[in-house]
Amino acid sequence: MRQTYEYERPALTADCVIFGLDLSAEKLNILLIERDREPFAGVWAIPGGFVQPDESPAAAALRELREETGIVNVFLEQLYTFGEPGRDPRGWVVSVAFYALVSPDKHALAAASDARRAVWFPATAPPPLAFDHQEILRVALLRLRGKLTYAPIGFELLPQKFTIKQLQKLYEIVLDRKLDNRNFRKKIFGMGVLRELAETQQGVPHRAARLYKFDARQYRQLTKRGLSFEV
Amino acid sequence: MRQTYEYERPALTADCVIFGLDLSAEKLNILLIERDREPFAGVWAIPGGFVQPDESPAAAALRELREETGIVNVFLEQLYTFGEPGRDPRGWVVSVAFYALVSPDKHALAAASDARRAVWFPATAPPPLAFDHQEILRVALLRLRGKLTYAPIGFELLPQKFTIKQLQKLYEIVLDRKLDNRNFRKKIFGMGVLRELAETQQGVPHRAARLYKFDARQYRQLTKRGLSFEV
Repeated sequence: MRQTYEYERPALTADCVIFGLDLSAEKLNILLIERDREPFAGVWAIPGGFVQPDESPAAAALRELREETGIVNVFLEQLYTFGEPGRDPRGWVVSVAFYALVSPDKHALAAASDARRAVWFPATAPPPLAFDHQEILRVALLRLRGKLTYAPIGFELLPQKFTIKQLQKLYEIVLDRKLDNRNFRKKIFGMGVLRELAETQQGVPHRAARLYKFDARQYRQLTKRGLSFEV
Repeated sequence: MRQTYEYERPALTADCVIFGLDLSAEKLNILLIERDREPFAGVWAIPGGFVQPDESPAAAALRELREETGIVNVFLEQLYTFGEPGRDPRGWVVSVAFYALVSPDKHALAAASDARRAVWFPATAPPPLAFDHQEILRVALLRLRGKLTYAPIGFELLPQKFTIKQLQKLYEIVLDRKLDNRNFRKKIFGMGVLRELAETQQGVPHRAARLYKFDARQYRQLTKRGLSFEV
């Protein structure tokens, strides 16, 4: 390890892939910002910005999320740090990338923000993206799909109360494959992280389905023992 | 996204937790460097150094590994980026951390390096470490244990040819728990990534055990379909 100040320093950004689920359209979406200045002015990009010296990359990501999309109180996880030479035409810029999962209750929030033009796009068919954001999105999708099979992070994409059918639909949308109903129920109940509610679904034409909640406390206990969940 | 040059820039390091397995002592080890200058002169640290503008963080980690320990051609994966304010007394220094898995064939190589005093220590009982390297080690151990249960990265810690007993021992050492022999065999053979060799173990007093190799090509095919492996 040599002296710090002999070396050139990169600019450091925190960028965040924001996933949201549209259950009625059966689509996994991402929230993008239209850039208003060069480079890539007018091109869509993952929300983000420069990290400041007094904040961690995660704090910077949360701040940019709030400033650029109005979203607060969200599931956020560090994804990967992108630092290939030449990834930014402005010079040496390294990006600590995050991904966030936004529940439908907060979708409206994001849309109401007027700080920027933030728009939801299908995660698997976005418009052309600035910088290496297409690559960041690819890695985020891989992580989300991978992690969904061993940790129940998918709950973050659902409303607080949901039906088993909605939960299965979430998995099918993100993993992009049909799951066997009976097998799915067996596995998801086998995890022991669902809490059955006394309520049933409101305003549905047919027989109303039972509603469930995710039991976060139970989940934390299970993960201490090394929970693994495979769909 | 605002202009790059309005902002202060952090120094960027790449640090690497190097895991090695000592099968005879049944220990998971990490390779540490004794720092020869301030801050933390004389204190043990994870090998690493400053990223240069013309290289990616991964390239920097591999270069530092080679310069500081003599290790080349190694399994390396990005772990996490550490950027909490105050983590380095020199000022704003952000570390892109990696972890490497070193097979026993390369342990000698590391020891032979005279660039630095590099020494293997038990991963769960290291000496006091510089900076936030204790935290980096904690996260690396979590990742290794977690990933071992769903991806067969453990093979990187074994010699090229190994017995099933050695493979099970690897899992037991890293996960720090005893596994059921029959269950382990069933699961590990069920993965379909082991290639049985015609050879048996040399120089053992008792009945020589069959040797196996990891079939990386088969593994790549399986992961495309979403392999999951749970011990």
